[in-house]
Amino acid sequence: MQTGTQPALRGQLQQLIDNKTKPLGALGRLEEIALQIGLIQGTTHPQLNRPYIVVFAGDHGIAATGLVNPYPQAVTAQMVLNFITGGAAINVFCRQHHLGLTVVDAGVKFDFEAGLFPGKLITQKIGYGTRNYLETEAMTADETAKAVELGKQVITELYAGGTNCIGFGEMGIGNTSSAALIMSYCTGIAVEDCVGRGTGVNDEQLLLKKQTLRKAYERHLAVITAQLDAMTILRCVGGFEIAMMVGAYQKATELKMVVLVDGFITTAALMLAKLLNPAVQDNCFFSHTSGESGHVAMLDHLGARPLLDLRMRLGEGTGAAMAYPLLQSAIHFLREMASFESAGVSKAASDE
Amino acid sequence: MQTGTQPALRGQLQQLIDNKTKPLGALGRLEEIALQIGLIQGTTHPQLNRPYIVVFAGDHGIAATGLVNPYPQAVTAQMVLNFITGGAAINVFCRQHHLGLTVVDAGVKFDFEAGLFPGKLITQKIGYGTRNYLETEAMTADETAKAVELGKQVITELYAGGTNCIGFGEMGIGNTSSAALIMSYCTGIAVEDCVGRGTGVNDEQLLLKKQTLRKAYERHLAVITAQLDAMTILRCVGGFEIAMMVGAYQKATELKMVVLVDGFITTAALMLAKLLNPAVQDNCFFSHTSGESGHVAMLDHLGARPLLDLRMRLGEGTGAAMAYPLLQSAIHFLREMASFESAGVSKAASDE
Repeated sequence: MQTGTQPALRGQLQQLIDNKTKPLGALGRLEEIALQIGLIQGTTHPQLNRPYIVVFAGDHGIAATGLVNPYPQAVTAQMVLNFITGGAAINVFCRQHHLGLTVVDAGVKFDFEAGLFPGKLITQKIGYGTRNYLETEAMTADETAKAVELGKQVITELYAGGTNCIGFGEMGIGNTSSAALIMSYCTGIAVEDCVGRGTGVNDEQLLLKKQTLRKAYERHLAVITAQLDAMTILRCVGGFEIAMMVGAYQKATELKMVVLVDGFITTAALMLAKLLNPAVQDNCFFSHTSGESGHVAMLDHLGARPLLDLRMRLGEGTGAAMAYPLLQSAIHFLREMASFESAGVSKAASDE
Repeated sequence: MQTGTQPALRGQLQQLIDNKTKPLGALGRLEEIALQIGLIQGTTHPQLNRPYIVVFAGDHGIAATGLVNPYPQAVTAQMVLNFITGGAAINVFCRQHHLGLTVVDAGVKFDFEAGLFPGKLITQKIGYGTRNYLETEAMTADETAKAVELGKQVITELYAGGTNCIGFGEMGIGNTSSAALIMSYCTGIAVEDCVGRGTGVNDEQLLLKKQTLRKAYERHLAVITAQLDAMTILRCVGGFEIAMMVGAYQKATELKMVVLVDGFITTAALMLAKLLNPAVQDNCFFSHTSGESGHVAMLDHLGARPLLDLRMRLGEGTGAAMAYPLLQSAIHFLREMASFESAGVSKAASDE
C-alpha cells in the first residue's frame, strides 16, 4: 500500500484511535477504516466532503441477442430516466445519506433530450451500445481510450467541486456478462464459474448464458492472452460504462479520493484499473458482497473484505450508498469521541 | 411469528416490494426487513418514528473482586458521565443517525447529581451495584421484579412521546460475565465456551474469568435448573441493567415497536425476555455479530442472522445505532421507489 510509506502518520492515527474512550480495538473494522482514510488523505483529521455516487450507463451489443439477459435492452434507457426522475433505489439511498448523484450516459441506445436534466445527466455518449462481442470486438481502440479518458474527466470535475469521496454505480442490460468475461480473463477462473444470474435468469437461461459466454471467451482468448492488458480486455468484451469506470478509478486514486466499490460489475472494472495501476486498490473500500454469484471469488482474488453482506444484487451503486454511513461513522468517531484523558475515564490496568 | 397471522398483509407487502423497479429480490435482506417491519406495524406503509437508543447502566458485585474484568468498577460511572457529556462512541453514532439517546442509571455505584442532566439521565437506581454472585444471589426477588418493571416504564414513556423504534445498549463493568452465565443456563453450552474477553482480558485473566464463572455457575445451578425461569436466572446472576432490558423488550413487543438488538449482553437479556414471551423475537432485528466470542453461538441458538459484522465489541448500543440506517433504507425503498408501472420500465420477460 502507498499508505505503507507513512509510518509516522500511521503511528499518530493509531494512537488517536487507541486513546478514545473504549477498550482497545473495540470498534473493530471502523478503526481500520479510520486509519485507512487518514492514510489516503495524509492527515490525522480526515473528512469526507461532498460524497457522490456516479452511475455510468451503457448498452451492450450482446443484450440485443437476448442470449444473456431476461430484461429487454430498452430497460437501460428506461432506468436512466428513472434515475433522473428520482424513482430508483439509488435515488432513495442517496437522498437518505445526503449523497450527490450523477448519471453519465456513456453509451445508451437512446437519445435523452440534452439540456433537459442539468446536473442530473452528463452526456458522454461513445456510441449507441457496444457491438456484439460474439461477432467482433465490443469497442474500437479509439472508443475504449476515449471512454477511459471521459471517465477521468467526470472525476476531475467532481473533485474540482470539492468531492473527496466517490462511489461508482452502473446500469447496462447485459453488463454482468462483460463483467464475468473480464473476471475470467483476469483470474483464470473458468468463465462458467464467473457467470451468475444477473438480473435473474432462470436455470435454462443460465445454461444458455454460460454457453454463450464460453463462445465469447474463446473468440477473444488469443488476442487477450497475447497481451493481457486492461485496454485489450476492455476493447474485446467490455462496455462503455465499464471503460469509464476504469478511468474514474485511476483519476480518483491520483486525486487521493476515497472510493467505494459497489458490486460485481464495478469490481470487474476495478480489476482492470488495478492492471493499469496496482495502487488503485489502496483507496478502495469494498461496500458489500453482491448476491451475484461470481462476486465472492472476485473479492477473494483481490483479497478484499467487504463491509456489508445483505444479498443485494441491484447495481446502480446501491451497495456503495448503503456502505457510505460506515465510512462516515469511522470519521466521526475519530474526530468526535473523547479520549480517556479528556473524559476522565480510567484505563484498563494492563494499558496504563 | 405473530406475523404469520396476517397472510393478506404479507401478500400485499410482497406485491409492493416485487413491483418496485428492480429485479425480483435484488434488494436482498432489505426486502425482508421491509416485510418484517410492515408486519410488526400491521401496515403496508410502515415508518420509523423518533428512534431512540436507551443505554441501561448498572454495576456488578463481581467486578469489585477484579476476578473477571481488567477495567476498574469506577469506569461504569465514568462512562455514564461520558454519555451525558456526549463524548462516547454511542453519542457519536446517535448524532450521525439522528437517534435520540437516553441513559438509565439502573444501579451504578455512584450518585449522579439528580436534575443536573434533564432528558439525558433517568435515575431508576435499584441499588449501588448488585451483590457478588460468587457469594450470594446478585439481586433479591423484589429488586429483580422492580428492575423489570422500571424497564417497562422507560419504554412506555418513550412510546408516549411517539417513539416506535428502539435499540438497547448497556454499560456495566463485569456484565459480559453475567451474560455468559445467562447464556450457559439458557443454551446448555458449557460456561467456559460462553466466556469471552469482554473489554479485553489477556490470556491469564481469561483463564481466571473462566474459573471464576465456573464456580458461579455451579453455585446457582440447583436453584436455576429447578425452575429455569427468567426471573430466577436474573436474580441469581443477572444485573440491574440486564433486568431492565428484559422488561423493556417485553413492553416494546406489547407496543408493537421495532427493536434493534445490540451485542452480547443485550442478546443475553433477549434470551431471558424470550423465556417470558416467545413472541418478543418477532419484533427484533439483530444489529451485528459482536466480536465477543460467545455471541455467534448465542445468535445461532436464537436462529438469528445479524445485519452487520464489523468485529465491534463495545456495547453501549453502538451496534444497534450502526444498523439503524439499514432499517431506514428498507422503509425508504418501500415508500419512495417507483413501481414498474409508474416509471414505465419494462419487466423481465419471465415476470410479465
